[in-house]
Amino acid sequence: MAEGLSYRDAGVDLDAAERAKERLRELVASTRDANTLSELGSFGGLYSVPADLQSPVLVSSADGVGTKLKVAFAAGRHDTVGQCLVNHCVNDILVQGARPLFFLDYIAAGSMDENVVREIVWGVAQGCRDNRCALLGGETAQMQGFYAEGEYDLAGFIVGVVERAKLVDGSAVRAGDALVGLASTGLHTNGYTLARRIVFDAMGLGVTDELPGTGTSVAHALLAVHRSYLPALREPLRQGIVHGLAHITGGGVPGNLPRILPSGLGATVKRASWPVPPLFQTLQRGGRVELEEMDRVFNMGIGMIVVVDPKSVAAVVEAAKAVGVQGWAIGSIGAGEGVTYA
Amino acid sequence: MAEGLSYRDAGVDLDAAERAKERLRELVASTRDANTLSELGSFGGLYSVPADLQSPVLVSSADGVGTKLKVAFAAGRHDTVGQCLVNHCVNDILVQGARPLFFLDYIAAGSMDENVVREIVWGVAQGCRDNRCALLGGETAQMQGFYAEGEYDLAGFIVGVVERAKLVDGSAVRAGDALVGLASTGLHTNGYTLARRIVFDAMGLGVTDELPGTGTSVAHALLAVHRSYLPALREPLRQGIVHGLAHITGGGVPGNLPRILPSGLGATVKRASWPVPPLFQTLQRGGRVELEEMDRVFNMGIGMIVVVDPKSVAAVVEAAKAVGVQGWAIGSIGAGEGVTYA
Repeated sequence: MAEGLSYRDAGVDLDAAERAKERLRELVASTRDANTLSELGSFGGLYSVPADLQSPVLVSSADGVGTKLKVAFAAGRHDTVGQCLVNHCVNDILVQGARPLFFLDYIAAGSMDENVVREIVWGVAQGCRDNRCALLGGETAQMQGFYAEGEYDLAGFIVGVVERAKLVDGSAVRAGDALVGLASTGLHTNGYTLARRIVFDAMGLGVTDELPGTGTSVAHALLAVHRSYLPALREPLRQGIVHGLAHITGGGVPGNLPRILPSGLGATVKRASWPVPPLFQTLQRGGRVELEEMDRVFNMGIGMIVVVDPKSVAAVVEAAKAVGVQGWAIGSIGAGEGVTYA
Repeated sequence: MAEGLSYRDAGVDLDAAERAKERLRELVASTRDANTLSELGSFGGLYSVPADLQSPVLVSSADGVGTKLKVAFAAGRHDTVGQCLVNHCVNDILVQGARPLFFLDYIAAGSMDENVVREIVWGVAQGCRDNRCALLGGETAQMQGFYAEGEYDLAGFIVGVVERAKLVDGSAVRAGDALVGLASTGLHTNGYTLARRIVFDAMGLGVTDELPGTGTSVAHALLAVHRSYLPALREPLRQGIVHGLAHITGGGVPGNLPRILPSGLGATVKRASWPVPPLFQTLQRGGRVELEEMDRVFNMGIGMIVVVDPKSVAAVVEAAKAVGVQGWAIGSIGAGEGVTYA
């Protein structure tokens, strides 16, 4: 019955999906490590628990890239968002002292452009290699009628491990501790709904226009890859000098730093202690955004805060510098609650 | 500057997101087990590796619910899709012999209806409890401009564990083995793009209409919860009688069973050996779909295939029956390749 319905007529092409998967095999294979037991195509990915831990605790996180994807669509660049996603997830488990083991991605689109999928997964695999993390699997979903032509959503899941005795949970934070802020590369993956509104609507710019004050294009400034702080923090974590870590994501410093502070303790952040990158000043002026709102939506140039004893500040700054990441003493812990700016 | 832009003006309400999270705390807590070390709100979820395994292998999978979500939107029912998602993921690692440890979800929508989010997460938590799996975390993403009003996407990620020596990978499958098919509850989570086209477009039905032949409404028939085969297979896996397992998802029996067959072996499936539920016959007639296409898109009433020695068929059928799941001897393994219908 030639006039009957098929899956392909309905908009789902299983053969194309199979071909796309085949093209990803090499990318996935590039992230394998000694503990990876499965290959792409098995129902579940297999990973052996590292045998060098006494009491291993798995640390896991799920995240997306948010509306930063809209900038990628506008710019036609799909190789950076996967790196952002992996690095974001790596940071989310790093703050508990964990190193990444493996990662899985979820890509959903109305119809699959094989080249776009390959570009996305290239970025995911690159992020995985950068963090020595295996890309263990993923799902590429054809969701007809869910996404606009040329658009997609991208989510990721990470599993890492930490020795139970080395868990970082902020309970070691005490009054008198110092805050070290580590430089972000830009917006990372937060605040894009507001940033796009400011840049594209209020300022009327396009992705190829120069973003005033930044010396670079809108696309370049807004697609800068979310930084992984794993290289910068590997040595401080090994030394056991870290009392607490806060990944500065949605909610900014005031929304994230208090999450790790013991009851009765607050943080004072000195505004002038680090250079807020021009990107944030441009956004603030362009959208006439109140400073308090800026602090709550954007990272303002600080992507990770490390809480340490004051005598360890130099060691953290040096360890970061050694891998090309700037760090500054930006404040301290004292009696109180939440975050106060000074 | 009252006329300046804020995140809320741009469509993202961080306070509402925080309130919604607070309402989920109890649901998440209902899934905790002795190995769950973290609470909702920490950057990453914490789970200790069970200490009762010699050589633990983690088995992980990511999946979505696909366009079954469109049926949920049309019916205004959001409490089943989370159960489908968890059960689908449980089955995907069960086929390698793994039992679930923990689960994370990803929910993305243009704007968040707190009640809908709660209904979705209720289903996810229910699925987790049913499978004795901790809901360790998740991400609820406000993605303005990505999803139509009232729509969302939902993805999940599971981590389970299996003793390395007890991994099921199909390598034990041999000529002469029998196939036991376990009953599905309906379409599970596959083929919905075609099924919706047939039911809503070709047949012109609405969600509250009766689906001919099924004795129930379109919504009820199409939203039936994807079955978890963990209860049915727990005992056969413990006994070590399972040679291979295939979860029948996208691609149907011909697309999934060969994934676990050793080179040189094929499967013969006897069509008359199990009763194809009326739902599938209605879809086939309604869309005038060729039988070969039906086999490739839908599970045709078999959601899981268990490959065992012929003498173990009764044990598997009995174990399934004991938990209310029907099973049938549906074919055998022999020299050849792929799946042949007889």
